[in-house]
Amino acid sequence: MSIHEECGLFGIWDPGGDCARTVYYGLYALQHRGQESCGIAAINNRELSFYKDVGLVGDVFTPAQLDRLGGTMAVGHVRYATTGDDRRENTQPLTLNYVKGTLAVAHNGNLVNTKALRTAFEYRGAIFQTTTDSELIAYAIAQERLRCGRVEDAVCQAMKGLRGAYSLLVMSPQKLIAARDPWGFRPLCMGRRGNAVLFASESCALNAVGADLVRELAPGEIVTVENGTVTAIRENCKNTAGHMCIFEYIYFARPDSVICGQSVHEARRLAGALLARTRPAEADVVVGVPDSGLDAAMGYAEASGIPYGMGLVKNRYIGRTFITPDQRSREQAVRIKLGALRNCVAGKRIVLIDDSVVRGTTSRQIISLLREAGAREVHLRVSAPPFIAPCYFGTDIPDREHLIAANLSIEEINALIGADSLGFLPLEALHQIAPDAACGFCDGCFTGTYPLESPGTDAKI
Amino acid sequence: MSIHEECGLFGIWDPGGDCARTVYYGLYALQHRGQESCGIAAINNRELSFYKDVGLVGDVFTPAQLDRLGGTMAVGHVRYATTGDDRRENTQPLTLNYVKGTLAVAHNGNLVNTKALRTAFEYRGAIFQTTTDSELIAYAIAQERLRCGRVEDAVCQAMKGLRGAYSLLVMSPQKLIAARDPWGFRPLCMGRRGNAVLFASESCALNAVGADLVRELAPGEIVTVENGTVTAIRENCKNTAGHMCIFEYIYFARPDSVICGQSVHEARRLAGALLARTRPAEADVVVGVPDSGLDAAMGYAEASGIPYGMGLVKNRYIGRTFITPDQRSREQAVRIKLGALRNCVAGKRIVLIDDSVVRGTTSRQIISLLREAGAREVHLRVSAPPFIAPCYFGTDIPDREHLIAANLSIEEINALIGADSLGFLPLEALHQIAPDAACGFCDGCFTGTYPLESPGTDAKI
Amino acid sequence: MSIHEECGLFGIWDPGGDCARTVYYGLYALQHRGQESCGIAAINNRELSFYKDVGLVGDVFTPAQLDRLGGTMAVGHVRYATTGDDRRENTQPLTLNYVKGTLAVAHNGNLVNTKALRTAFEYRGAIFQTTTDSELIAYAIAQERLRCGRVEDAVCQAMKGLRGAYSLLVMSPQKLIAARDPWGFRPLCMGRRGNAVLFASESCALNAVGADLVRELAPGEIVTVENGTVTAIRENCKNTAGHMCIFEYIYFARPDSVICGQSVHEARRLAGALLARTRPAEADVVVGVPDSGLDAAMGYAEASGIPYGMGLVKNRYIGRTFITPDQRSREQAVRIKLGALRNCVAGKRIVLIDDSVVRGTTSRQIISLLREAGAREVHLRVSAPPFIAPCYFGTDIPDREHLIAANLSIEEINALIGADSLGFLPLEALHQIAPDAACGFCDGCFTGTYPLESPGTDAKI
Amino acid sequence: MSIHEECGLFGIWDPGGDCARTVYYGLYALQHRGQESCGIAAINNRELSFYKDVGLVGDVFTPAQLDRLGGTMAVGHVRYATTGDDRRENTQPLTLNYVKGTLAVAHNGNLVNTKALRTAFEYRGAIFQTTTDSELIAYAIAQERLRCGRVEDAVCQAMKGLRGAYSLLVMSPQKLIAARDPWGFRPLCMGRRGNAVLFASESCALNAVGADLVRELAPGEIVTVENGTVTAIRENCKNTAGHMCIFEYIYFARPDSVICGQSVHEARRLAGALLARTRPAEADVVVGVPDSGLDAAMGYAEASGIPYGMGLVKNRYIGRTFITPDQRSREQAVRIKLGALRNCVAGKRIVLIDDSVVRGTTSRQIISLLREAGAREVHLRVSAPPFIAPCYFGTDIPDREHLIAANLSIEEINALIGADSLGFLPLEALHQIAPDAACGFCDGCFTGTYPLESPGTDAKI
Repeated sequence: MSIHEECGLFGIWDPGGDCARTVYYGLYALQHRGQESCGIAAINNRELSFYKDVGLVGDVFTPAQLDRLGGTMAVGHVRYATTGDDRRENTQPLTLNYVKGTLAVAHNGNLVNTKALRTAFEYRGAIFQTTTDSELIAYAIAQERLRCGRVEDAVCQAMKGLRGAYSLLVMSPQKLIAARDPWGFRPLCMGRRGNAVLFASESCALNAVGADLVRELAPGEIVTVENGTVTAIRENCKNTAGHMCIFEYIYFARPDSVICGQSVHEARRLAGALLARTRPAEADVVVGVPDSGLDAAMGYAEASGIPYGMGLVKNRYIGRTFITPDQRSREQAVRIKLGALRNCVAGKRIVLIDDSVVRGTTSRQIISLLREAGAREVHLRVSAPPFIAPCYFGTDIPDREHLIAANLSIEEINALIGADSLGFLPLEALHQIAPDAACGFCDGCFTGTYPLESPGTDAKI
Repeated sequence: MSIHEECGLFGIWDPGGDCARTVYYGLYALQHRGQESCGIAAINNRELSFYKDVGLVGDVFTPAQLDRLGGTMAVGHVRYATTGDDRRENTQPLTLNYVKGTLAVAHNGNLVNTKALRTAFEYRGAIFQTTTDSELIAYAIAQERLRCGRVEDAVCQAMKGLRGAYSLLVMSPQKLIAARDPWGFRPLCMGRRGNAVLFASESCALNAVGADLVRELAPGEIVTVENGTVTAIRENCKNTAGHMCIFEYIYFARPDSVICGQSVHEARRLAGALLARTRPAEADVVVGVPDSGLDAAMGYAEASGIPYGMGLVKNRYIGRTFITPDQRSREQAVRIKLGALRNCVAGKRIVLIDDSVVRGTTSRQIISLLREAGAREVHLRVSAPPFIAPCYFGTDIPDREHLIAANLSIEEINALIGADSLGFLPLEALHQIAPDAACGFCDGCFTGTYPLESPGTDAKI
Repeated sequence: MSIHEECGLFGIWDPGGDCARTVYYGLYALQHRGQESCGIAAINNRELSFYKDVGLVGDVFTPAQLDRLGGTMAVGHVRYATTGDDRRENTQPLTLNYVKGTLAVAHNGNLVNTKALRTAFEYRGAIFQTTTDSELIAYAIAQERLRCGRVEDAVCQAMKGLRGAYSLLVMSPQKLIAARDPWGFRPLCMGRRGNAVLFASESCALNAVGADLVRELAPGEIVTVENGTVTAIRENCKNTAGHMCIFEYIYFARPDSVICGQSVHEARRLAGALLARTRPAEADVVVGVPDSGLDAAMGYAEASGIPYGMGLVKNRYIGRTFITPDQRSREQAVRIKLGALRNCVAGKRIVLIDDSVVRGTTSRQIISLLREAGAREVHLRVSAPPFIAPCYFGTDIPDREHLIAANLSIEEINALIGADSLGFLPLEALHQIAPDAACGFCDGCFTGTYPLESPGTDAKI
Repeated sequence: MSIHEECGLFGIWDPGGDCARTVYYGLYALQHRGQESCGIAAINNRELSFYKDVGLVGDVFTPAQLDRLGGTMAVGHVRYATTGDDRRENTQPLTLNYVKGTLAVAHNGNLVNTKALRTAFEYRGAIFQTTTDSELIAYAIAQERLRCGRVEDAVCQAMKGLRGAYSLLVMSPQKLIAARDPWGFRPLCMGRRGNAVLFASESCALNAVGADLVRELAPGEIVTVENGTVTAIRENCKNTAGHMCIFEYIYFARPDSVICGQSVHEARRLAGALLARTRPAEADVVVGVPDSGLDAAMGYAEASGIPYGMGLVKNRYIGRTFITPDQRSREQAVRIKLGALRNCVAGKRIVLIDDSVVRGTTSRQIISLLREAGAREVHLRVSAPPFIAPCYFGTDIPDREHLIAANLSIEEINALIGADSLGFLPLEALHQIAPDAACGFCDGCFTGTYPLESPGTDAKI
């Protein structure tokens, strides 16, 4: 699996202080949303300070750094960036000075009118030092602020010009502001811990710091915290339930998060059950690809009556610095990352559950690994439909040319990966995996149809 | 869980070369046996070179380093060391010059006659630069070599003076030698990949590099590889099945390893089933503490008929640099490390499966986490008997004063950790968890009775 | 001595390529002008890439980094920054996207109308991500570019709004532009090496890369290199010889540089000679404080007839990581940094030559060190007048309250530092130290009178 | 110049504590004697602790490290090692456990009977983990200690078997012991600071920490400090003045050190004067190659009456990480390391003073640099005789094949380096450069005749 979410957000207003430390733990819980860089900005006595760098949360921050940041307000960010970006410059939160003082801006998502916005600003003399949407958003806010009496109103006006996916945290010396795009692509929720008010991309991060989930922001909503008072602006809310990225349920989000009222773990389990019903297989054991295939595998096992088995063990120590075996080695990456449990698979017919097939390479290697361990048959079942189109809204699902399912039939894919049979979750079933979700969905990567018109491409520094 | 295995070994003889690279991948698969330091020594044209440092395998070695090491033979080591050790000096393999040239020595285990050995050597003028048993073993071999014609004979003679747990790899410019102590405490197995001969602490490491498990070394056996010929010396083999550490099955080893013919995963599953039969509970769902409690939880669920549920999610990013929350934070370490799945646990009676209770602190926090997530009842079942005695044979199970079960009754422990009920695997059941194992066991930490007489304590540099 | 220059610049246009490597060596030669951070931006096929970080040139760049940067044009920067700056964000060159594509901007100096400029831009909606003047200059250029047909014209127009000290390098995908402020505070010269055209803060950097000094830029001049053609814009040149910082001659610049036609080494030697004539002393030996006092000490010795002696040796290994002795140590920083040559000083009357007295602490310690080594008398002679006013034009000469000479009489200073006598170079003599210089001078730090009106203070992010 | 001294030593006994910090500053002053690795071992309440690593003193130690080491006794070491050594293992001081407890051993020098010693120990069963002489010396002491009542007696007995150059510091939990080899090759002196007793390779290190030089150890002498009492053993002292390495005066030692009563700076100045008398030149200015040629240049200028000029400036920032220009660059290393002062050299006849010519490459480049800067003539004068033989006693003066003067005549060398004339200090004059020195000299590298018979070569791990 090689699809990445692009960011995670965490913010807190807490007069009790030490906010950077809470953000640190919140970002730890959101690390799965971005492992490339991270940052925290904090306010102490109306002064902004920040620290950010490339690396994991646990590698970037030291206790001394967190003590220095302190904070009665703080926002943090974890980021995934596609290779080739000039990396350190793009770390977030973006911190800046503008006409009314200082701001910190962090966002999760992807705008689709980047080029038009950038050009418009440039024709007014703007300079851009990063390739992030955050810088565009910051400019938009700064320019609206000239006409608006309050920063939250500037955010509100700026949002009218932004098209695409964004969940947003903006921090001024006195206010913490959270916002979601009117289409509702990316999650953002609000929590409380005593007097403190918190925002997080996923509810698992609220749990991690001992806060309670209060509610999720509505698509288009702006929530402002000032002196402990929480107010909402709903001027940009459209009259729709929005279009939550459905792949958040299938893969991106942590299973212990709740998004739009729907438990992620339950959605995956249900996807597995629906997969069992629509794409059955005759088999002796259901094996999930760890970690993200395990929930669906349980669901498949329950619905099919085929026993669930732990057939694959994941090596917990493969990190960024892992030296991938090269051509000349007889070692194979998949064998180092996954170990097959011979006792569980030898002589068995296996239903193998994974959550996606991107290029097919990994699937082929896992199937071969299971056969080497003695599996008699391997039936691959995927708990999502085939990817046939790219994502423009905050993930790196690639162009059609790199998506196996956009170019080959199911039979061709099956031949390529060497399974005994192959089945994907049907599109119709996909829409049933989140029955508790009080929202609509974006399933553009599975359908090629998006809630927003055709996106442009980005200028590069 | 805070019990640690102390080491992992991997060695290969392969005329095809690039052995250091294979050892690198083998050590990756054994990283769970030691995360403090690691090292690789390799032979090229009879010349020894090596690299070792504190840190994880993935952090210590670079591609350039592996290329430099190359090797038509190589041995590697991962190490866990108790805090306070002078660390870098104690990394292994130990490399040395002696009367017959060079040697590399790596070992897994703990001697119990260290003090006597050390004193005896010192009275012959020896100097010790580390606090490792490897240095003692190396001295013993070097001194025997003066009287023995072959290095493997020197190893054989040296072993007669060593008391305790040790699996051993010794590499001279021409020979790769593996040995296990006569009591058979620690595992060590042999594999093949084409012409290559390999040794590893666990079979999962053989699988990782595409090798097949040939057999495990017998207690007391010495196996020598020279020019592709494998010969065995069994002079030190006693007429017993040995005393394999039973906690290897319960916790230390990787579930996809096979030890003495017994699948580790199956042993854990069986422990869970035996636990269900001997320590039943009325409940709605069985939840394992990830990762090591999951296999037993499945076994418990199957045997009891209570559904298995994923009630806890582990944060995959907690590493060595994690800043543990201190007193003043409202965050709790357990909440950052584990997330509870509210949907799975709310309103439910839960059987919580863990593999050990050392001090009780972690258990208390997990139970409290589940209650916060709405669990109605939490019944803790432990897939091993209570620890009542320390381990002298290669793990850091501590002294009685730090073992809660050595000081409190089951009821008192239960009160302390706040479970609704508490049950441990009975000792009788413990001996049934590895029916396929062709060996005897050491269960000293659960009984206070060891295969070897009372151990001494170690001198410190 | 604790006065710092704030930056050094180096740029090259060379169709032969590998420009980043030449900049690397050029920056090495300019490292004395800034040791806090450094950066290089390069153009390859009209694409901009860059690398910058905190640290010395030798620590920041690797061969791989230089190879990646390559370049048929490149600009580089070394920076000194006062403590407390958010450091990494302020590294240069600043690289940016604007209406016409990409730019890299590097500058040496300090603007005095920063606040007014910043406010003006902010009222047009600008955001500032750094606290550097470079960002202001970049904005000014970007805004003028909307009205100007060529980037060099935009630089020309932008300069009309900039007040203060700045030498500037601007690089677009096709052009390399160099400029000096109309007051001529900071040096900037042009060189050639074959077809290549180069710019550097000091001529020593041209020599370092085997280039020849062609000429220095006039105050207010803009020089553009495009396709090997060099053109000049002199629209901003005032009809004056400018006001070169006279402290460049006394301390900042490297002795092997030539500034405005005047050899720096010769200027220092002459300062020493003038000091001997105006502030004579009866003594046995002239000792310079290494390294910057040595040239003047030679001049003093020659002019006075008193022998020159090497009385102090400097420890060449004191770097950024040196742990300064704290209160409890009996060690003294000065003794570790400087060693006295007992044979040279014992029993002697010494004329000690230094180039400045800022707070007096270091002078007191050096004098005490010489007395401990047996000096009979120590007469301190300073090769510059007393500092009585701060510098607003690119150095960190501090406010009056921290300048000993702004608060105490010569006698009081002498008493404080414990010399037998103390003499500074008279102001009248100061103006004679650079007879070959075809320029006027800024001596504001010695007189309190500046070529530009009273400066404002800076806003901080 | 590319000749390196191999080590520096510093030790202190001070009941006032914080000894590691004093050693830190002492090692800073001795850094010129070894820049590859360093280490400090300290005693607190009879417990030994240590820290050592590759790198400069300023990079290896942190304040926290020094605080942890503390110490009422401490010894430190700086080391230069030839490339290819397994580096980290060879850092010193060597710390060890032996029959009587713990020892730390640090040494400066080179044994010549290494191979015989090593073999003898190996035939008694010894193992060697490093390639340092320190380990051999430690073994010798440990073995003698079995027969001797006091560690200093064991040192005394061990010394009888050691042939070669060594200055030695040995620290037990109660005693600090210093010793010099009976031939007196390497310096070692004793100092006092209040109650504290100190030892250092050079007196400049005593000055750096505010201690007074008491005396230098005699060749063969052993000095022991215990509870503040200083005692000497002279059993190994031969009836000769010893053979101090004369190149310590010419190049290795710091100019502010005094060795055997002779100021190093004065020796160099005298070498310059003797050079002027024996190898005169018609010239306009005397220019020294910085830093080590400057003292001799002054002496040459004084004796010849030709003015001394600063014609070359050294770049102070060239460190270990400097990327040397490769073939394809038009830059030359020498131009980056040295800048020529055009005003000083243009049109002049120059006497260039350097302290040695090893391979001739650097001399050729410097001469070419001076000619480019306009020098009319360049007469190279070297303040030492030509190297014609290697050094076996603690420096890396290489084998004859790499010494230009061992293979070419003066005329041939002159042709090769491109000077107008070339002169070396005559051997007869060499013996006059240290008139105050109360010792004999080793001049083996200039004569091929050594105080000790032909040395063997070393075994490698």
